[in-house]
Amino acid sequence: MKLLLNRIEAPYVFQLENENGVQCLLDASPEIGGLNKGLRPMEMLAGSLAACAAIDVLRILEKQRFDAEQFSVYIVAEREKGDSSPFKWIELQFSCDRCVDRARLERNIKLTLEKYCSVAASLNTNIEIRYSVL
Amino acid sequence: MKLLLNRIEAPYVFQLENENGVQCLLDASPEIGGLNKGLRPMEMLAGSLAACAAIDVLRILEKQRFDAEQFSVYIVAEREKGDSSPFKWIELQFSCDRCVDRARLERNIKLTLEKYCSVAASLNTNIEIRYSVL
Repeated sequence: MKLLLNRIEAPYVFQLENENGVQCLLDASPEIGGLNKGLRPMEMLAGSLAACAAIDVLRILEKQRFDAEQFSVYIVAEREKGDSSPFKWIELQFSCDRCVDRARLERNIKLTLEKYCSVAASLNTNIEIRYSVL
Repeated sequence: MKLLLNRIEAPYVFQLENENGVQCLLDASPEIGGLNKGLRPMEMLAGSLAACAAIDVLRILEKQRFDAEQFSVYIVAEREKGDSSPFKWIELQFSCDRCVDRARLERNIKLTLEKYCSVAASLNTNIEIRYSVL
């Protein structure tokens, strides 16, 4: 995997680009001078966990021949306090209309987070990953 | 921290939005049906590490009264193979014009990754984080 992160505006507006030319913007928090022109790195990290899990859950649902209409994940997270402030916990609240019964969706999410999700497997084991179905 | 991840197009195009309404798109890899409309979750994860480190390095440079003109980070990463494929290692290659001498920049990067970077502190300790100055 190769990516380029380039500062495009002072103080902290960055453009991230992958090998296919797909781009997104990142920015720092307003408290330290961010301009709200992109997501913050820790928001991007939490979002990447949710998206990785969502993709894997959708793939399992497809194999089970369930078609998800609306599919969303609300993300709530809390950080530690200190010089660095890693996540203490991240909660993923899944919402899925008409796609599958709640118990099956919960089993699929559990399987995904424990076995298939590469972002979850890349996170520090001190971070508690919670999930629920809305 | 609160975020919403919403699927906006089948099969796997997601929009991530933070509390300030800032948005970005995520998508799956083309191999499993992704449409190249957004960065992939694992790309987002590697990018969030680079951006977090870059912001902290720039803040240290500012305190040292160095003004960075061009500031970029090339990201190279390798993943494990298996059911999930977390990162094996991530290398951050910093490029900075006219801002500071190479030795000082390397010291700042080392300090950032070991002490200040919240994304680095959120990653699994099995992932080797390398850095260099171009």
